[in-house]
Amino acid sequence: MSKITNVAGNASGSEGVKEDMLLVHYNYKTNVMLITGTFLDEISHDIPHQNWSEKEWEQDFRHMQAMGIDTVILIRSGYRRFITYPSAYLLQQGCYQPPVDLVELFLTLAGKYGMRFYFGLYDSGRYWDTGNMQHEIDHNRYVIDEVWQRYGHHSSFGGWYLSMEISRKTRGAIEAFRTLGMQCKQVSNGLPTFISPWIDGKKAVMAASGQLSKADTVSIQEHEREWNEIFDGVQGAVDAVAFQDGHIDFHELDAFFRVNKQMADRYGMQCWTNAESFDRDMPIKFLPIKWEKLRLKLEAARRAGYDKAITFEFSHFMSPQSMYPSAAHLYNRYMDYKASL
Amino acid sequence: MSKITNVAGNASGSEGVKEDMLLVHYNYKTNVMLITGTFLDEISHDIPHQNWSEKEWEQDFRHMQAMGIDTVILIRSGYRRFITYPSAYLLQQGCYQPPVDLVELFLTLAGKYGMRFYFGLYDSGRYWDTGNMQHEIDHNRYVIDEVWQRYGHHSSFGGWYLSMEISRKTRGAIEAFRTLGMQCKQVSNGLPTFISPWIDGKKAVMAASGQLSKADTVSIQEHEREWNEIFDGVQGAVDAVAFQDGHIDFHELDAFFRVNKQMADRYGMQCWTNAESFDRDMPIKFLPIKWEKLRLKLEAARRAGYDKAITFEFSHFMSPQSMYPSAAHLYNRYMDYKASL
Amino acid sequence: MSKITNVAGNASGSEGVKEDMLLVHYNYKTNVMLITGTFLDEISHDIPHQNWSEKEWEQDFRHMQAMGIDTVILIRSGYRRFITYPSAYLLQQGCYQPPVDLVELFLTLAGKYGMRFYFGLYDSGRYWDTGNMQHEIDHNRYVIDEVWQRYGHHSSFGGWYLSMEISRKTRGAIEAFRTLGMQCKQVSNGLPTFISPWIDGKKAVMAASGQLSKADTVSIQEHEREWNEIFDGVQGAVDAVAFQDGHIDFHELDAFFRVNKQMADRYGMQCWTNAESFDRDMPIKFLPIKWEKLRLKLEAARRAGYDKAITFEFSHFMSPQSMYPSAAHLYNRYMDYKASL
Repeated sequence: MSKITNVAGNASGSEGVKEDMLLVHYNYKTNVMLITGTFLDEISHDIPHQNWSEKEWEQDFRHMQAMGIDTVILIRSGYRRFITYPSAYLLQQGCYQPPVDLVELFLTLAGKYGMRFYFGLYDSGRYWDTGNMQHEIDHNRYVIDEVWQRYGHHSSFGGWYLSMEISRKTRGAIEAFRTLGMQCKQVSNGLPTFISPWIDGKKAVMAASGQLSKADTVSIQEHEREWNEIFDGVQGAVDAVAFQDGHIDFHELDAFFRVNKQMADRYGMQCWTNAESFDRDMPIKFLPIKWEKLRLKLEAARRAGYDKAITFEFSHFMSPQSMYPSAAHLYNRYMDYKASL
Repeated sequence: MSKITNVAGNASGSEGVKEDMLLVHYNYKTNVMLITGTFLDEISHDIPHQNWSEKEWEQDFRHMQAMGIDTVILIRSGYRRFITYPSAYLLQQGCYQPPVDLVELFLTLAGKYGMRFYFGLYDSGRYWDTGNMQHEIDHNRYVIDEVWQRYGHHSSFGGWYLSMEISRKTRGAIEAFRTLGMQCKQVSNGLPTFISPWIDGKKAVMAASGQLSKADTVSIQEHEREWNEIFDGVQGAVDAVAFQDGHIDFHELDAFFRVNKQMADRYGMQCWTNAESFDRDMPIKFLPIKWEKLRLKLEAARRAGYDKAITFEFSHFMSPQSMYPSAAHLYNRYMDYKASL
Repeated sequence: MSKITNVAGNASGSEGVKEDMLLVHYNYKTNVMLITGTFLDEISHDIPHQNWSEKEWEQDFRHMQAMGIDTVILIRSGYRRFITYPSAYLLQQGCYQPPVDLVELFLTLAGKYGMRFYFGLYDSGRYWDTGNMQHEIDHNRYVIDEVWQRYGHHSSFGGWYLSMEISRKTRGAIEAFRTLGMQCKQVSNGLPTFISPWIDGKKAVMAASGQLSKADTVSIQEHEREWNEIFDGVQGAVDAVAFQDGHIDFHELDAFFRVNKQMADRYGMQCWTNAESFDRDMPIKFLPIKWEKLRLKLEAARRAGYDKAITFEFSHFMSPQSMYPSAAHLYNRYMDYKASL
C-alpha cells in the first residue's frame, strides 16, 4: 500500500492553493492539540448505558492512560432520581439507592492511574423543565458539603465541575455559577472549578428531536456580547470554561474560538475545548465522530491558543471496549496521529 | 478494588434516611423478581433484525436456559405480509413465503431446552392502521386451527399469546380477545392464554417519532376504571395479563402495579410483568436498558406480588451474542445479581 | 436440527396456494440476482463513519471479492467541504484538506482485487439546499478534468457515477446529467456513466426525520410518464440507471421494476438495481436489513430482467467487519444462499 500517499506530508504537490489555507491544513505537527481529559457520563441524559462492572471501568482507565488522559470529570453526580453515590441528602429527597458507589470507584481509579478527578454537581432536572436554577442551588448547597466530607480525603479529588449546561439565553445562570462555584472553592481549600456551556449554533437542537440543525442561530457578535456579560458575572467563581465544540459548523470554529479565548483572557479564566467525539451530523444520535472532523476541531482549538482539550466522552466514543465498534477505530486513528507527531 | 463498596450491603451507614425507603432499596435479597420468560421478536414492528441462522438461535436458547428462562413467547406469527411459518392460509392472502419455518424451529428448541412455547397470533397491521380489530379476528380464526393442526403435537406447545397490543382506548378489543382466547383454549384442550397491553403513561409515544414522552397521560384512577371494564370483559378467555412496564416513570411503578395486581386477583387472572430490557429514555430507539432501571422495575413487581416476570426481549437486549454489545454486559450484570442472592 | 425444514425446498406441501405465487417464491434457484457491485460511502450524507485505516479497507475489499463483487462505486468524491482526494480545485473553493487520498486508495485496491472502479462526482450540497443543479455543473466541470488527469492512468478506473440523487420532481436535472455525462465520456474515451435515482414512494422521507413513511406517493403511471421524459433527455449521456429499491413497499416491486426495465430498454440503457442493504422500516436510521427483505428485492429484479445488482452498501451493512454486528450475519446469510444455488 506504499503508493497511497498520506496527504499531510505532501504539501509541495498542490500549486495554486492559497497559502494560508495550506498552512492551516498541512503543518499539523506544529498545530496539534491533544486530548488530556474526558467526561465520565454515568447518569446520562441521552447516551445509552453500557452496563459495565468495576472490571470494565478499570480497563477503561487503562485505555485512557495509554491515550494520555490526565483528567476525568464526572459529568453529574445525579440526574433527577438517579444518583452516582449513596447521598444521604439525595436519598431523603426521593432519589433511588444506586447499586454501586461510582464516586468512590472513579476517585480510586483516578488515584491509581495518576489522574485528577473533577466532581460534577447534581442536576435535579428542574432547570431543564422550568429554566429556573434555584433548585440546583438549593440541592447542591447540601451535596457539595456532603461530598467533600465523604470523599475530600482522596488525593485524586482535584476540582469541581459546575454541571449546569447553559447557553446565551440562560443569563440567570450567573447567580447559580457564582454561588456554587464559590462554595466549592471554599469547602475544598480553593480547588478549581469549570463550566462547559454550548454555543447556540446551527446544530443546537434537542437530542431526541427529528432535526439535525436549525435556522435561528447566534451571530459571533451576539455570542461575544452575551458571553462577555456571563464571564464578567462569574469571574472568580469559575476557573476555566470549556465550550462544547459541536454546535457550530467546522468553518465557523476559528471565529468563535478566537472570541472565546479573548474573553477567557479578559476575565482571567483558562480556555479549554470540550471536543465532542460523537457526530452531530448523522440521523443516529449519537455514534462516534469521523476522525477527520475531530482533528479539524482540535486543530482549530490549537490555532486559537486554547489551554487544554477534554472530550465528551471517551468511554462511549473513543474507547477500544465501547459498545460502538467504530469507537475503537477512532481510538486507533487518534493513536496513529499521536505516534506520527 | 476492595475499597469500592457495593452499596446494597451497606445500609447501616445511611442514618437519617427514611426507613421505608431503605427497606425498598437495601433488602433486595427478599425483594427479588427473576426473569423466567422472554418474547421472541421475529417479525418485528420496530427492532432491527439480527439475521441469525438456526445455529445462532440454538446458541441463544442455551444462553436463555443459563439465565433461568423457562418460557418463550413468539411475539406474533406474522405482521402484514411477513410470516414466521409457511401458512397455507396466509400465503393465499398474499403473504410472502418465509425462508425458514421459525415456529417449527422455536418449538423444537423449546422442547430441547425444557421451555414452554407460547404461540403469538397473526397481526395483519390493519388494526394499527384503522383501530378495527375485525381483521384480526377473521384471519386468526383460520390461523389458530391451522397452527394447532400443524404444530399441536409438540409437547413444548404450551399456550397462546393474544398478540394485539392495546391500551385503555381500545375497548373494542374486548370482543377480539374473548373470541380468539376462547378459540385458542377450545382447540388446544385448554392451554393458557395471555395478553401484554401497555399503560398509557408519559412514555407511550410512537417508536419512530422524535419524542420520548408526552403530556397527556392516564391517571391511576382512569387506568383502574378502564382496565376493570376490559378485565371484566375478557374474564375466562385470558389467563394472564403482562402489562408492559416501560411507559410510566419509575416512581409511578408501585401505584400502577398495585392496581394491576388487585384487578388481576379480582378477575382470577395471573399477573405477570413484561419487564422491558430496552431503554425508553434515550434518543436511539432502542438499545439495552441500564441495569439499575431494570432492577427497579423487577423489584417493584415483586413488591406488588406479581406472579411471573417475562421480558421484551432477550435476544436483542440481554443476550451475550446480541448485535448490541451492551446487551452482553446487561446479561453479566443480571447474572452477578442472581449469583449474589 | 434436521427437523427444521427449509421451506424453499418444500413446495409440494402447500396445496391450495395460488400457482403464480408459488412460482415466485419457491423456484428461487431459477430466480436469482446476485450482488456484484457496491457503493463506497466515504463522505457520507447520513451513515456514520467507521474510522477505518487502509488496513481495514484492504480487508474489506477481500471480503467483497469473496462475495463476488466486481464493481465498486465511490458514492461522491466530496460533499460540501469534505473531500476524498486532495483536489487543487476544491481546496481553492474552501474544502478541507483530506487526511488520506481515498481515490488513490480505492483505485489501487480495485486494481489489486480485480474490480472496476466508478468515480462519483462532487456534491456541493447546494442542490439539496436550493434545488438548483447549476453549482454541481460548475464545480464538476473542473473536477472531471482534474480527476481524469490525476487518476486516469489506473487500469481500474472503469466509469463515472453521476452522483446527483434525483426523483421525479427534479426534471431540471436532465441538463446536468446530459452535460456532465457527456463530459465524463469525452475525457475518458467513452467510459460508461450511470445514475441512481429514487422512486418517490411511501418510504421517501428524510433520513433525519421522525417519520418512516408518507401518504403522498407517486403512482406507477405518474412514475412512468415522468421518468420517460427524463430518460429521453439523458439518452446518450447515461449508460445505466440503478433505481434505489427501498422507497416502495415490497409488493410494489414487480410493477415498478417492470416499468423501469421497459423504459431502460426503450432508451438503450442498462437497467441495474440498487439493492439497499439497510432497513428503511425501523426507527434506527439505519441498520442492516433483514435478509428475507433483501432477497425479495433481488428476486423481483431478476423477474424484471434487470442487468446487474449493486448495493448501498457493503462496508456498513454487509461486511463481516462492519460496526453493526448484524451486517456480518447478513453476509453469512447471503453466502449461505449463494452456496445453496
